[in-house]
Amino acid sequence: MKRITVYELYKKSSEYANKEINIAGWVRTARESKTFGFIELNDGSFFKNVQVVYENNLENFEEITKITISSSLRVTGILVLTPDAKQPFEIKATKVEIEGLSPVTYPLQKKGHTVEFLREYSYLRPRTNLFNAVFRVRSMAARAIHKYFQERRYVYVHSPLITANDGEGAGEMFQVTTLDLDKIAETGKVDYDKDFFGKHVGLTVTGQLEGEAFAMAYGNIYTFGPTFRAENSNTKTHASEFWMIEPEMAFCDLEELMDIEEDMLKYIVKYVLDNLPEEMEFLNKFVAPGLIEKLNKLITSTFTRIDHEEVIKILKEAKVDWEFPPEYGEDIAKEHEKYITEYFNGPVFIKNWPKDIKAFYMKQNPDNKTVAAVDLEVPGAGELMGGSQREESYEKLLNRMNELGMSTKGLEWYLDLRKYGTCVHSGFGMGFERLLIYLTGVENIRDVIPFPRTPKNCEF
Amino acid sequence: MKRITVYELYKKSSEYANKEINIAGWVRTARESKTFGFIELNDGSFFKNVQVVYENNLENFEEITKITISSSLRVTGILVLTPDAKQPFEIKATKVEIEGLSPVTYPLQKKGHTVEFLREYSYLRPRTNLFNAVFRVRSMAARAIHKYFQERRYVYVHSPLITANDGEGAGEMFQVTTLDLDKIAETGKVDYDKDFFGKHVGLTVTGQLEGEAFAMAYGNIYTFGPTFRAENSNTKTHASEFWMIEPEMAFCDLEELMDIEEDMLKYIVKYVLDNLPEEMEFLNKFVAPGLIEKLNKLITSTFTRIDHEEVIKILKEAKVDWEFPPEYGEDIAKEHEKYITEYFNGPVFIKNWPKDIKAFYMKQNPDNKTVAAVDLEVPGAGELMGGSQREESYEKLLNRMNELGMSTKGLEWYLDLRKYGTCVHSGFGMGFERLLIYLTGVENIRDVIPFPRTPKNCEF
Repeated sequence: MKRITVYELYKKSSEYANKEINIAGWVRTARESKTFGFIELNDGSFFKNVQVVYENNLENFEEITKITISSSLRVTGILVLTPDAKQPFEIKATKVEIEGLSPVTYPLQKKGHTVEFLREYSYLRPRTNLFNAVFRVRSMAARAIHKYFQERRYVYVHSPLITANDGEGAGEMFQVTTLDLDKIAETGKVDYDKDFFGKHVGLTVTGQLEGEAFAMAYGNIYTFGPTFRAENSNTKTHASEFWMIEPEMAFCDLEELMDIEEDMLKYIVKYVLDNLPEEMEFLNKFVAPGLIEKLNKLITSTFTRIDHEEVIKILKEAKVDWEFPPEYGEDIAKEHEKYITEYFNGPVFIKNWPKDIKAFYMKQNPDNKTVAAVDLEVPGAGELMGGSQREESYEKLLNRMNELGMSTKGLEWYLDLRKYGTCVHSGFGMGFERLLIYLTGVENIRDVIPFPRTPKNCEF
Repeated sequence: MKRITVYELYKKSSEYANKEINIAGWVRTARESKTFGFIELNDGSFFKNVQVVYENNLENFEEITKITISSSLRVTGILVLTPDAKQPFEIKATKVEIEGLSPVTYPLQKKGHTVEFLREYSYLRPRTNLFNAVFRVRSMAARAIHKYFQERRYVYVHSPLITANDGEGAGEMFQVTTLDLDKIAETGKVDYDKDFFGKHVGLTVTGQLEGEAFAMAYGNIYTFGPTFRAENSNTKTHASEFWMIEPEMAFCDLEELMDIEEDMLKYIVKYVLDNLPEEMEFLNKFVAPGLIEKLNKLITSTFTRIDHEEVIKILKEAKVDWEFPPEYGEDIAKEHEKYITEYFNGPVFIKNWPKDIKAFYMKQNPDNKTVAAVDLEVPGAGELMGGSQREESYEKLLNRMNELGMSTKGLEWYLDLRKYGTCVHSGFGMGFERLLIYLTGVENIRDVIPFPRTPKNCEF
């Protein structure tokens, strides 16, 4: 008999009613008396468990009464609908095979472990309700992103991970090498000619530059892959390895860019809400009360579009004792982000930023002071996306790189994109984990990455 | 007026007929006379170009007649159906704006460049028909893979890229570090306490081990992400950075594994054929004659399942003068792979391999000689997937690691998966680029990766 999943049982319970079925899964809870017992079994296909009822007519009844949490079972039984009970059906077992008996030393015996404790058990924590929900949301959000862009014919581009470019110019790259460090210590020589790529290379901080090259061929593209920062920050929002989505669109200006960002975000949020009601209800109930309301509000909200200069003006006029006083020409702090989304009661696109606090590749505005950059501030999430129109003029881009003292070495090709059929184009980056923190209500980036990497932490 | 894409023009040409429309794109070819001219424009949204016709009533007529290949244009005009012409419609331009004029030094002026030449221009090559088709296939195949697994409720897992584990035990990992190599040379000391993660770490060669942990929570999972090999091989099939798909399924044995592999492969091939007819026809015509026939044949073929031992017997009995004589207990060579797929006239699953030539985590068969591994050999592609049932016994896995002299350090958690509710489970890996070589007929892995990384080559 073919095994079916718990998900199928829930979706087609009337079809399977009173029939013999086969399932397999892991014990979530078990309780037993002298003549019968109950097992909550979960096979990972669905957020909910299925209740298995067994009686002492089973030949291995004694053995089953001793079943432990996290043990794996294969169960044959009759699906019985229980319209008056808490759960819609249960399985009356005709056969229970223990496939893998788990010892009582299983570390996650009891509920209510802290997330900090569970981080030590990254390989087991997706078995808990919390992390099971979070990583299913992660998978579903990824699905939504691919679906959104693919259905709109954006080409998915795998930008390179190992690179000699520091695309953000921030200098916080991991080095990648096959040189023998002990030998370097011994000989006192670093010979990059002998390194795998024959030069100093590192892990990418962005796929944008390569993405732009492909946008000049396909019009619309997106990347969705890992990026890295060797930043020695131990905060709730920093990880050394994280995933980014970086769409690039040719013949697209700043206004059109904001249209796309807004449309995409609403799509993703709606898709996750529609497709994972059980997980989202759990998160809403146990992790972040008000989560679903917050997300539903986003879907129907109007996104404000306002210049950075106007934002500073509003902040300056606010009767607030700022920790960091807002200033024209300067970046804004978390307290300002929060204020401004509350002020407009919804998401806010802050655009046309002072050029000196933004990256070299951003489109220089005619005022000579600002660039056509835009950050999206979302209530309860802070900055969720950062984008810009890209400078399409070869001369202006080169001048800006020179002004900043940047070397063009290795970036000639990027400049050349402005020679060979340059056009108005724009793109943005969204940190996938930042989106997940927003979607799940979980606070720490370590809890939305399967196996997080942070300073001094590279387990599993 | 809102810009529309060339793709939309093709899909809804009757809707747009005789209406004024706006498009933007790059010049593929141009020819002109004294009173009118033609431009083949491509905007990347579709494999086909659209023909723009302009006449000397345009005020910038002279300028347009000098237009160069790869220049970017915005065109307003009337869509006119041309049922008797080669192309189904053309645009009679009422306005042509030159957005980015490309110089005549544009490197890809002429058609017929070799792939070797074009590799030097990875940032421009997706503008050629060949690479445009290849990288659209890459995107579409990725879409098919996500769609296949997501629709079957597999959870997409982002396994870590930076890791201290050598998951295949092959020792060909890139090192990742923030230590200053020059300083190491100077001081003669390597202090891993001061490295970013406080220890020696590298780039992953597989996400399988972490994938297994998540399969024990979700039942079915898949990874789809980059993997790395610091292997100094300059061949047509080796890259230092490539993407892998690694599904893992709980309560799944070797036979069920083969069912999934076969079903998935047929799905992907069919999906790409169905959704990219223009690109596939181009590849069929200009790159690999017979490609579409080969792929269609795969979809309807029966996949043979046969033991490694039987394969060796067939090879030994063959009247062939082998370069590498086949031997029981040994690996098979490319010539054998080819022979065996021809022998069975279709794809062949070769299963139950000698344990000494396979990885430590594979399920040990009762014969004590073989493991429940399976390689899929496909006509015209060679080995496309490699998988196995995983050893679910803690003792057997530990013994095997000891036998092989492997350290369990850092892999205790992987062993512990066999303690805490272990179950029969299986998984496989498919190199994404190997699949793409098969799908596109392109021969060199460097030509299916946007920006390939190979020994001494890390440009862009």
